[in-house]
Amino acid sequence: MSEVRVDPNLDRYAARAAALRASEIRALFSVASRPEVVSLAGGMPDTAALDLEAVGDTLQALMAEDGARALQYGGGQGDPELREQLCEVMGAEGIDARADDLVVTTGGQQALDLLAKMLCDPGDVVLAEGPTYVGALGAFQSYEARVVHVPMDAEGMDPDALATRLEELHHEGRRPKLLYTVPSHQNPAGVSLSEERRHRVLALAQQWDLLVVEDNPYGLLDFKGEHHPPLVTLDPSRVVYVGTLSKVFSPGIRVGWVMAPGALRDKVVQLKESADLCQSNLTQALAARWLREQPWRDQIDRFRERYRDRCRALTDALAAEMPHGCEWSQPTGGLFVWASVPEGIDTGELLAKALNARVAYVPGRAFFADGSGGRSLRLNFSFCGEDRLREGVQRLAGVVQEELELRAAFGTQLDEGTS
Amino acid sequence: MSEVRVDPNLDRYAARAAALRASEIRALFSVASRPEVVSLAGGMPDTAALDLEAVGDTLQALMAEDGARALQYGGGQGDPELREQLCEVMGAEGIDARADDLVVTTGGQQALDLLAKMLCDPGDVVLAEGPTYVGALGAFQSYEARVVHVPMDAEGMDPDALATRLEELHHEGRRPKLLYTVPSHQNPAGVSLSEERRHRVLALAQQWDLLVVEDNPYGLLDFKGEHHPPLVTLDPSRVVYVGTLSKVFSPGIRVGWVMAPGALRDKVVQLKESADLCQSNLTQALAARWLREQPWRDQIDRFRERYRDRCRALTDALAAEMPHGCEWSQPTGGLFVWASVPEGIDTGELLAKALNARVAYVPGRAFFADGSGGRSLRLNFSFCGEDRLREGVQRLAGVVQEELELRAAFGTQLDEGTS
Repeated sequence: MSEVRVDPNLDRYAARAAALRASEIRALFSVASRPEVVSLAGGMPDTAALDLEAVGDTLQALMAEDGARALQYGGGQGDPELREQLCEVMGAEGIDARADDLVVTTGGQQALDLLAKMLCDPGDVVLAEGPTYVGALGAFQSYEARVVHVPMDAEGMDPDALATRLEELHHEGRRPKLLYTVPSHQNPAGVSLSEERRHRVLALAQQWDLLVVEDNPYGLLDFKGEHHPPLVTLDPSRVVYVGTLSKVFSPGIRVGWVMAPGALRDKVVQLKESADLCQSNLTQALAARWLREQPWRDQIDRFRERYRDRCRALTDALAAEMPHGCEWSQPTGGLFVWASVPEGIDTGELLAKALNARVAYVPGRAFFADGSGGRSLRLNFSFCGEDRLREGVQRLAGVVQEELELRAAFGTQLDEGTS
Repeated sequence: MSEVRVDPNLDRYAARAAALRASEIRALFSVASRPEVVSLAGGMPDTAALDLEAVGDTLQALMAEDGARALQYGGGQGDPELREQLCEVMGAEGIDARADDLVVTTGGQQALDLLAKMLCDPGDVVLAEGPTYVGALGAFQSYEARVVHVPMDAEGMDPDALATRLEELHHEGRRPKLLYTVPSHQNPAGVSLSEERRHRVLALAQQWDLLVVEDNPYGLLDFKGEHHPPLVTLDPSRVVYVGTLSKVFSPGIRVGWVMAPGALRDKVVQLKESADLCQSNLTQALAARWLREQPWRDQIDRFRERYRDRCRALTDALAAEMPHGCEWSQPTGGLFVWASVPEGIDTGELLAKALNARVAYVPGRAFFADGSGGRSLRLNFSFCGEDRLREGVQRLAGVVQEELELRAAFGTQLDEGTS
């Protein structure tokens, strides 16, 4: 089972990142799955930090009190009691939600897939941050939509660049179907959209009558416990909100949700039923009981604090170890650091050497639809302990350093050989 | 929660069945969800027959021994240990499966959805029994495929009719993308494809180079514990097999699977990841432990015996109560009886009166893509106890009788009024 522990997504990422042949991906993946490899590549929360005994007791009580229902089919919109509890979770970020507007989905990913299926025809344009969540790229592209990126900086998506993109598309006669955004502690960029920019982005959305899909898995994982107002609180009629319990409780229960205005919601329910009939009643009932009976806010605090310490360990190690010319984000929450290596190194090509040095990351190109990101990489700090993070960075720094030295020695020839 | 217990799918069925307006569907559904309504409409196994204490203990042990992994992300293909166990389940029907050829899906429904997404472009033709599983219709139609039906009789799909359809399509210049079939204890028709016909159907598939999707939720639910050879055992290279634990263990865990030759399998994994990243590790681990540690074959025997008795109670009640001119199938397994009412009565139109008389069924038109089935209806016998089944049939018979008397009194006027 070690490949599951180390990095369930590496093959997917690697496939997207480097356009390698299937056999090469399998070879890389079989290496990355070895326990001696430090994987900074996944996006796994530290489920070992959960009170597993409490989860076990909750499950046993559930079986004793309501087992036949938990093991039965449920309705397409999701368990009404769970939807009430999910409104509480949204309330922790100031969202005033009604259970009736929610549809429970298999993680946030299924919400994106169903929205893509509903909204995207082949060739349609979807706007998204560049870089953006690899699973969103997968969902939109699986319906043959074209993702157009909006550049980001340390304050998140650049509204001026968004305005330019919208103008460009208008001149091309194309109306984007939606704007997909992860405004808080973005995956993979590790930055948040500032409050002032939130208003500017929504003003543009209003000006161009653009539907916004707000994907918010990390909003409650701010290291200081602060948060910017979710977009949906600023313009409820224009924003479809996607949430998940994957990062605040457990990804293994696959509980996400989408909150959408009435007509969209009904259509999502219909698509959910055609996709898989209904959500697991068992994991829904577990989530509902967990949120009702357990101190879930304290649990989120534990995650936040643990990730804050690990993020510091990672960025400190990067500062101490990485060669001159490398850069990285300074996250204030979430799970990821976004880094770049000096000009001339391609992180997709470097991955094989990194795996050989027993460290894994996700090459930056995985997070772009347009082939950019070749100098970037994503590092995860939520899963490995601090010592292991430092060990991983040391190995990564060694690989980058070696590559730089190789290039210094054989520079131009190498560049010509790979171009 | 009563709507979940009574019939989670009635709105979907009703929508398909009668092309009612949304407001009417909601009105019907709110009636059908009342506990005083005997619902013969759903397709729910009797999960109360499970050893719920054993499930609770299994879950608690799982949390204690492997909790952090069960609550974590898993791989896109599904838990390797569960896939091994699913091969055992398939072995009970004589299928020689390899875990590596399986992809775990969210029930059989997601397998159908992913196959439809992979194989069907808008306008493509899919062949399927008429009537066929309503969820398959939903999946194929959601990708804008056109379902063409092959008539059935008491021995299942008619191979002569299949040959004719294939000839007709050939003359139209259309090549069907696949043949979808539920060969054993079909939903909704309540019949099985005879062994001789299995060979004839596969010979036709070979002749026309047709991919066959075999959906087999009920194969182990034969009342005598017998089974015909699954199609996949007769032609492994041509048949994509879809299985599920929903009817032999629990639908609430949402564990199904698809077994497909290598290239198709890889593509299904990729689509699964884009649809929802991965299956729930928790419910997969529960299923794996259940199949490894619990007497699951005995549990299936318990289901089989219970459903056999209930089926007999239902068909005996139909024989005793239903007016002259009604007909129904004589199931040898599965969950459903397929019935028809005398000429002139439309089961879609009758549903409102039936709900008023506190009995629910699924109108036959729900199971056809072409608007036929107006005289048919599906009755479920797996969920209600025998007394309740008899009560439901009594109410149904009363409604049909009343309708017949009304028509005898005002016959031609009524027919003109509704045509």
